[in-house]
Amino acid sequence: MNFERPSLAALSGYVPGEQPADARVIKLNTNENPYPPSDAVAECLRSFDVDSLRRYPPPLANEFRNQAASLHGIKAENIIATNGGDELLRLAFTTFVEPGETIAVMEPSYSLYPVLAKIQGCKVLSVPLLEDWSMPGDLAQSLNHNRVKMLLLVNPHAPTGVLLDTDYLGKLLQEFSGVILLDEAYVDFVDTDLHYNAIPLINSYDNLLILRTLSKGYSLAGLRFGYGIGAASIISPILGKTRDSYNTDALSQKLAVAALSAADAARANADKVRRTRSRLVEGLNLLGLQTRPSQSNFVLAQVPAKPGAARLYEQLKARQILVRYFDQERLCDKLRISVGTDAETDSLLESLRELLG
Amino acid sequence: MNFERPSLAALSGYVPGEQPADARVIKLNTNENPYPPSDAVAECLRSFDVDSLRRYPPPLANEFRNQAASLHGIKAENIIATNGGDELLRLAFTTFVEPGETIAVMEPSYSLYPVLAKIQGCKVLSVPLLEDWSMPGDLAQSLNHNRVKMLLLVNPHAPTGVLLDTDYLGKLLQEFSGVILLDEAYVDFVDTDLHYNAIPLINSYDNLLILRTLSKGYSLAGLRFGYGIGAASIISPILGKTRDSYNTDALSQKLAVAALSAADAARANADKVRRTRSRLVEGLNLLGLQTRPSQSNFVLAQVPAKPGAARLYEQLKARQILVRYFDQERLCDKLRISVGTDAETDSLLESLRELLG
Repeated sequence: MNFERPSLAALSGYVPGEQPADARVIKLNTNENPYPPSDAVAECLRSFDVDSLRRYPPPLANEFRNQAASLHGIKAENIIATNGGDELLRLAFTTFVEPGETIAVMEPSYSLYPVLAKIQGCKVLSVPLLEDWSMPGDLAQSLNHNRVKMLLLVNPHAPTGVLLDTDYLGKLLQEFSGVILLDEAYVDFVDTDLHYNAIPLINSYDNLLILRTLSKGYSLAGLRFGYGIGAASIISPILGKTRDSYNTDALSQKLAVAALSAADAARANADKVRRTRSRLVEGLNLLGLQTRPSQSNFVLAQVPAKPGAARLYEQLKARQILVRYFDQERLCDKLRISVGTDAETDSLLESLRELLG
Repeated sequence: MNFERPSLAALSGYVPGEQPADARVIKLNTNENPYPPSDAVAECLRSFDVDSLRRYPPPLANEFRNQAASLHGIKAENIIATNGGDELLRLAFTTFVEPGETIAVMEPSYSLYPVLAKIQGCKVLSVPLLEDWSMPGDLAQSLNHNRVKMLLLVNPHAPTGVLLDTDYLGKLLQEFSGVILLDEAYVDFVDTDLHYNAIPLINSYDNLLILRTLSKGYSLAGLRFGYGIGAASIISPILGKTRDSYNTDALSQKLAVAALSAADAARANADKVRRTRSRLVEGLNLLGLQTRPSQSNFVLAQVPAKPGAARLYEQLKARQILVRYFDQERLCDKLRISVGTDAETDSLLESLRELLG
């Protein structure tokens, strides 16, 4: 017999990007950082007292919360640690949106959002981005009119890499009467001379919940550690009510603290990624694959009708190079390519030259 | 403004047992294993390749699933790995119970269950255990009559330590038309001569989902690693739809595999715990604290009206000995005491002798 909830019957679960076992594959499909985590993480692991694992972890991960608060110049009450950014996304649904209520996503966007909405029994208002991937002008009015409880916004946007500035975000937070989940998974790769920083907005807007993750900027996708930033009033019910009692483990907490304590090392890697991103964009454009400026660790490249994105994806895969192809409207003529090392980028461009030349 | 769902407003979150920072405290309040994890776990940690953390973990934890399947003589399709047993509990709600539907718990039981029900918007049917903590005779009929979708059953029961046998469980699974979440968090401490094993029931009953955890039997409460066992049809929607995409991290997966590969070491520790449990029970009974036979790593001790359980709890705490006091009907005259090392047990009994003598 099938005991699954009837409302889940039609749901296809989220399908993450491929994780090939073969280490020779050049993996540019899931936006992982091409550089390893900092030495501080390795040292922390080596010195970890395994025997301490017999006890439950600190339930609120307070050492991490203090460390993150100090890094961002805010208070621990503004921070919640989560089992990857994904957990914060899920918790935002279970904390702020009743079954039957509506959330909004931009289209295109992270395809996990509608899956989480379905699980929570929410309706989804899908708001198309404009032709140039910019935001529609009447967004807040439209959201309020549709009684939207929560808007999920990736910034910089995935899969386009477009960045919204904080003036725009402040205005949206002011006008929209629901919660904005600002998914900053890729924020560490924004050009530093833009001085982008959305965190001070939490002091003015109690409807802002910022998602951060150690997966990308700190090279720790395998660790599953993320955190939320917001006014104490928006953090508090997640922390005290909806979160699993011990949602992050003792070892990950320690490693995450070590990672943040070596934020400079992560910033140096992000610098390298940005430099390689420029080379990648230049190389792609020379080959006729148009891109828009990306503030993330990936670029979205327009593929000429011949061979087309689906075919080029397969051709690259046959050469052990994995990129991301999305079989959906407005994206199916493009490929999302993560910024790898310089050597990986050279191999990719070399292969593209052969395939397209 | 408060953006939390109105239906959560009245919810008090689950409050886990105290986790004192002071290492000198004799901690007998959260049923942790008094012995450290096996050497295999320590070795695995030392040899772990930190650089590999920059990549996402294997999403389904297949190496762990294979290891657990092999340990239990079943297939990987019968296993799902989770971020602690708590995650499996939550996922059981989100997978099998629609908001508005009813779940059932035995009273008393794990106080997290009603919290999870509230978060999912479910009603809770609370079924009192009989005077001797045994199950009411007409349980399945009552559950079916109340259209209960899921029954949460701890076996051995917490906080009493009473074990239901597999004949009883099979009959209940046969008669009840919903899902039974059989929480076997403490199963590793059941007397081996009882030959208790509920796993074969998954072959006959597709409404059975068994919860296992590495927290207790494997001394890894700090790691947050649990797993579910069931027919492929009951595991599949959790695995493919409701679970967070990368719910367990790469490091925990490896350590969990190492722990299971050294199951003998865990069994040896469980033997020690059982021997100490006998000593603890004997000592308590001599002091006039009555207990029932426990098949778990804790005992529930009846405290004489003078000094009463609440006061004795405080007196022990003042002596740096933490046990668990539940301020609720049928439990407020008792203390739940975890089985510690022999030395910890001696200290506890010595203190009790002084306090009660």
